[in-house]
Amino acid sequence: MSVADKDVSYYDIANSEGAVIVGAGPVGLMLSTCLARWGYKIKHIDNRPEPTATGRADGIQPRSLDLLRNMGLKSDIMKHKPARVYEVAFWDPVSKGIARTGTWASCPSFIDARYPFTTLLHQGLIERVFISDLEKNGVQIQRPWTITDFTSDESQNPEYPVHVDLAHVDGTTTEKVRAKYLFGGEGARSFVRQKLGIPVHHKDPISHVWGVMDGVVHTDFPDIKMKCTIHSEHGSIMVIPREDNMVRLYIQIASSTDPDWNPRKTATAAEVQASAKKILQPYFIEWERVEWFSVYPIGQGIAENYTLDHRVFLGGDACHTHSPKAGQGMNTAFLDAQNLAWKIHAVESGFARRELLETYEPERKMTAERLLDFDNRYAKLFSQRIPAAAEVEAASENHGTEAEEHDNDFIKTFKESCEFTSGYGVFYEANAVNWSPSHAAKSKLIQPAGAKLQPGHIFPNANVRRVVDANVVHLEQEVPLNGSFRIFVFAGKPSKTGMAMRDFSNGLLSKHSFYTSYLRADVDQVSHHEQHNPHSLFFTLCTIFASTRPSIEITRDVRGVLARYRDHVYADDQHDEQVPHASAPAHAKMGFDEERGGVVVVRPDGYVGVVVDLVEGSGTVDALNAYFSAFCTKELTSVGPRLKALAGESDVQSRL
Amino acid sequence: MSVADKDVSYYDIANSEGAVIVGAGPVGLMLSTCLARWGYKIKHIDNRPEPTATGRADGIQPRSLDLLRNMGLKSDIMKHKPARVYEVAFWDPVSKGIARTGTWASCPSFIDARYPFTTLLHQGLIERVFISDLEKNGVQIQRPWTITDFTSDESQNPEYPVHVDLAHVDGTTTEKVRAKYLFGGEGARSFVRQKLGIPVHHKDPISHVWGVMDGVVHTDFPDIKMKCTIHSEHGSIMVIPREDNMVRLYIQIASSTDPDWNPRKTATAAEVQASAKKILQPYFIEWERVEWFSVYPIGQGIAENYTLDHRVFLGGDACHTHSPKAGQGMNTAFLDAQNLAWKIHAVESGFARRELLETYEPERKMTAERLLDFDNRYAKLFSQRIPAAAEVEAASENHGTEAEEHDNDFIKTFKESCEFTSGYGVFYEANAVNWSPSHAAKSKLIQPAGAKLQPGHIFPNANVRRVVDANVVHLEQEVPLNGSFRIFVFAGKPSKTGMAMRDFSNGLLSKHSFYTSYLRADVDQVSHHEQHNPHSLFFTLCTIFASTRPSIEITRDVRGVLARYRDHVYADDQHDEQVPHASAPAHAKMGFDEERGGVVVVRPDGYVGVVVDLVEGSGTVDALNAYFSAFCTKELTSVGPRLKALAGESDVQSRL
Repeated sequence: MSVADKDVSYYDIANSEGAVIVGAGPVGLMLSTCLARWGYKIKHIDNRPEPTATGRADGIQPRSLDLLRNMGLKSDIMKHKPARVYEVAFWDPVSKGIARTGTWASCPSFIDARYPFTTLLHQGLIERVFISDLEKNGVQIQRPWTITDFTSDESQNPEYPVHVDLAHVDGTTTEKVRAKYLFGGEGARSFVRQKLGIPVHHKDPISHVWGVMDGVVHTDFPDIKMKCTIHSEHGSIMVIPREDNMVRLYIQIASSTDPDWNPRKTATAAEVQASAKKILQPYFIEWERVEWFSVYPIGQGIAENYTLDHRVFLGGDACHTHSPKAGQGMNTAFLDAQNLAWKIHAVESGFARRELLETYEPERKMTAERLLDFDNRYAKLFSQRIPAAAEVEAASENHGTEAEEHDNDFIKTFKESCEFTSGYGVFYEANAVNWSPSHAAKSKLIQPAGAKLQPGHIFPNANVRRVVDANVVHLEQEVPLNGSFRIFVFAGKPSKTGMAMRDFSNGLLSKHSFYTSYLRADVDQVSHHEQHNPHSLFFTLCTIFASTRPSIEITRDVRGVLARYRDHVYADDQHDEQVPHASAPAHAKMGFDEERGGVVVVRPDGYVGVVVDLVEGSGTVDALNAYFSAFCTKELTSVGPRLKALAGESDVQSRL
Repeated sequence: MSVADKDVSYYDIANSEGAVIVGAGPVGLMLSTCLARWGYKIKHIDNRPEPTATGRADGIQPRSLDLLRNMGLKSDIMKHKPARVYEVAFWDPVSKGIARTGTWASCPSFIDARYPFTTLLHQGLIERVFISDLEKNGVQIQRPWTITDFTSDESQNPEYPVHVDLAHVDGTTTEKVRAKYLFGGEGARSFVRQKLGIPVHHKDPISHVWGVMDGVVHTDFPDIKMKCTIHSEHGSIMVIPREDNMVRLYIQIASSTDPDWNPRKTATAAEVQASAKKILQPYFIEWERVEWFSVYPIGQGIAENYTLDHRVFLGGDACHTHSPKAGQGMNTAFLDAQNLAWKIHAVESGFARRELLETYEPERKMTAERLLDFDNRYAKLFSQRIPAAAEVEAASENHGTEAEEHDNDFIKTFKESCEFTSGYGVFYEANAVNWSPSHAAKSKLIQPAGAKLQPGHIFPNANVRRVVDANVVHLEQEVPLNGSFRIFVFAGKPSKTGMAMRDFSNGLLSKHSFYTSYLRADVDQVSHHEQHNPHSLFFTLCTIFASTRPSIEITRDVRGVLARYRDHVYADDQHDEQVPHASAPAHAKMGFDEERGGVVVVRPDGYVGVVVDLVEGSGTVDALNAYFSAFCTKELTSVGPRLKALAGESDVQSRL
């Protein structure tokens, strides 16, 4: 039934939700966990009576572990003792059975990862970590419930434009809910996507039928605890180690390139086991227990749109499907959800203009397209020939010259693939939040010469020492995922930047700066223990000096508003293998002068927004005002002419 | 009442316990946790109705964190977000108030620690981690119960010689229990110690009255999140950061050197706060909340004995008391308990002769004596003069020449103290389990030239790559604390040690080797998933090659009995800052030739027992047989003349 048929008064205020989220897999859970933490009212339904009991589960890639840690969820996942995949082994046919022809790192050392491995754990355990966090914020997944209809019309109700009909799967109970947003995270057969009429495009016309089996085995195959791709004259198989002595085997049962292709072709567990036994010869394999077995057809597909009206959104498998080989499903889902979550928050909390939501689809759809593209190119490269061991070794190392790399397509594609699949290579194109020369902010101080940071790319890892307690910490993890922009002020040497830092601090305090324009309503009552958001819910300021910790005295070296963030003052004095000769390694990694520093704005999801030189005068704050003006709701004005008079603007200063 | 008065038939078989443990503080909990995990029946009582609610809590030192990780308990402790102390700051009087005169690392880089910080967490939270582990093994702490009497007489009952009377603290209920062991871990006023008539000796005649206050404060004192020692003209104070924004302050209220010394001198919370305010001038401090406040007299004391009959034992504060400044109480308690636990297990499970228990008191009492001695020397060194910043810096660095160090008492004492207080410097003198030239085992292969490992000292940390799954792991953590000896076979280069490894493996399989003499009763039924103890509950074998992981093929390079430990085969190919130029860093750290290797036996508690050369022929196994013969229950004979005939000894080999 369409909106014309029904009386919208049923969707009354008692059933008003911030968002209705359909599907409690990784994408839905990540989205509702973020929004629930940030105070939104959530209706989250799933048509399964319980979380995933067995099977499914993609790997958690290195970058996803960073994100989970930033949410405080990593240790709850790691306590289940997941398998960790550090290397992938390749097995190929030889005269008698199969032999290992090479291995390589799943996250080689040229990638600057905290956790250079893929984490394998039953999806149900991962889901439960999120569900338990949701429960702390008062959200229960409503199960087994399904969505039966929805409409979205801002002209009818600008505040709650989405009207959703929900029903218990047995049909006995229904609910009518109105919401600000609806999210379809119900997987490849998404009802929301279908109802919106959004087509799915198949980039690669080839489809496959896969058999997947989780179980405990007895075998003399030496790499049973490694991730393996095995080709034999009897067929191909992929081995993925799992927690609790389990092993997952993927077997390709049929391909649309087969002469007798039938997407409904299936196989029994016994048939898959028989195939596996043949493929693994001369090694034996026996199953002690089969935990899960499934056969399913899958092809590469991308939804044409992720939203039509920026009120009803799609994410996860509802938008993109691909072969399980890529091991990217859960990771892409997490990133879809985080990307959307902070943008909804920025808009709904009054910080960003509604157009910010228009960046969700291009950012995430481009990533999905790159994923499928890489998947194809990578597979083709390997189907052409077996790489020589020396090539793999060269590709895995940190020190090839650039010329050598370009000479060899294999190495180039390998490196790109590793960066992409580890999650560190995911990047976003220019838009209002990712600065570029075509951005509205035109200051010459933006993207200063030498800066290695690139807008739209990940803010890299860096170890620094926190000044107040001398703890060695991960700088990129110091501000939790809470919807705030992270402003890292690399302050170089205090002796060189003293004036610039004073001007920066004064500029932040000026009446129409981005900073004072978005003060907390309760700024006068904030506890002195508040570390991240003492003044504004949208910004956390971190100051990093290119000095050793004992030489930094916060009361002397950190002035004005920055001094309030005493728990976010750091010494850049920790050795880093990536820049072994730098005396201030974090400055060096970012590409900042170790004496003069620079400022980075990092988006709430960890991507660089803009990089600005740190200079005396009002230029640095002016450049940031121009950057934020491109998407925030208030008019920000240049500080310039009034910088010297700022000491008199006590109405703002006296509150902070 | 003494044994003569009572009818021992009351202590019937229904109330037979492996051990009665009195006191559920750190020492008692560590002991019962170990014994309960290893299958012993435990009666554990405590006279408090609940675990520690507030206050107490010493720091967990770096080495203790290693031990907790080895028990799988570290992550449960760290999830409470304890404070981490990386540095200590010293504040001294200046013309106007106080000023920082220096800081230094609590665990400087010359100590090869995994976790170079002290962990501060409310003792009750630490206790609950153990209590929850005990509950998994069916042990509930019986509260609030107390011990009222006990006797111990092996001649009456060789199996259950200890008879214990227990009572509810309200006196309404009593129990009579017979046990193999009784452990007094009830703190400084131990009933068990007093009943045994064991005197406490005070090494330093000076006693102090301390005030201690836990609370949340508001202050502009810059080092409130650091550990600080503050001297001012108004008195002295120690600051210790805690979890949840709390701070602990220790204030010395009286000393036996005061002219008006009174061990009963006390102070109110308001008086302590007033003192703290004066001492911290010119900084302000206000209390938002006081969580705990206590005043108590304490002196340095050591019990003359830790046991009289090796059936009734003491540990923790019942044996040694010292000032809270040392921050060693909980760590010393943990080590007391682990030391005793594995020895009781070795004896009761039939592996070691009962005399092994005689090593508990000398090993642990010597450690307590060293602790008090260091505490004194260290305090005196600092009371004499304030160290220059350059001295602290020199002492903290990794690269002073030995000559320089000897020139400077301060640096020498500082280094010794750091090693000791971090836990890495704790070592044990020669005895049956810690080999020395006076040990019964006389093989010339023992303690080969170049070996850096020393019997009685800690087996150092080393990163290696596990071959089966390519995971980078902490070698010293690979065998969990389960009562087994860990035998690390550093196998050098397979091309050089092939014959030696074959002979070693054959030697282990010989009829009267230490290995085959202690096979599991269920050796024929052990699951192929068992990683640590497939053949014997007393040994786990680990093989470490001085090769890169891809070059190691377990089926080719690991022979015989060693091949069964496929999950314990490692590649020594991980860079280590301590030996930056070594190609096989773990071999180099241990002092083994990178080509020829060597064998280390590590006690179940992580201390080196014996180091043996890896040679062709029977010598290596013969040396280990001689070593174990010094304390094990069975006769072990030399393999020597029969090594070549071993292939025929199929009665043993066929079972493995």
